[in-house]
Amino acid sequence: MKFQKENLFEGIPASLRSEFVDRLAWRKGVRIERIVSRGHCSPAGYWYDQAETEWVMLVKGAARLRFEADDSVVEMKAGDHITIPPRSRHRVEWTQPKEETVWIAVFY
Amino acid sequence: MKFQKENLFEGIPASLRSEFVDRLAWRKGVRIERIVSRGHCSPAGYWYDQAETEWVMLVKGAARLRFEADDSVVEMKAGDHITIPPRSRHRVEWTQPKEETVWIAVFY
Repeated sequence: MKFQKENLFEGIPASLRSEFVDRLAWRKGVRIERIVSRGHCSPAGYWYDQAETEWVMLVKGAARLRFEADDSVVEMKAGDHITIPPRSRHRVEWTQPKEETVWIAVFY
Repeated sequence: MKFQKENLFEGIPASLRSEFVDRLAWRKGVRIERIVSRGHCSPAGYWYDQAETEWVMLVKGAARLRFEADDSVVEMKAGDHITIPPRSRHRVEWTQPKEETVWIAVFY
């Protein structure tokens, strides 16, 4: 079959030492990634500081993001999405420990 | 608060005469859309024929896509995603009638 689907909840390694990231689709200037956490969060004191805009949606699970600029905390549940402009330093403070948290992120 | 989340399942009109589409994020050459159907499908004989690549994921619900090139049918359930290259004529043959079907589509 020419047009092949894949599933967001399949093909995830059984054991994850750290956040699992894979690329679902891409082209120059755009990439779509799946991010899976099982209780993982950003290392203490670490801030993501990206050159691209990131649109990110939590598909399953729960997480807490922190933004450095205004020290705000955003609680994310299934269906929540947020656009993170370039150079908006942020971190994943927490993801739920017992079940998987699965995100879709589009970088552009 | 500077960084505002939204939720994919909120802000959907109570009554939909046709598929509901809104733009969640965009920049030149990239757009992220939410598509909501309540049993809607493509009109008889209608094929989408797009200049852009579309990556589309079914977040909630169920649907059936048909591709003209090989007359293939792809059943989509939650988490299923597929990349549709430019000019790949396709249609939505069916979405589940009783509950909402919600998609995320990235055009690039």
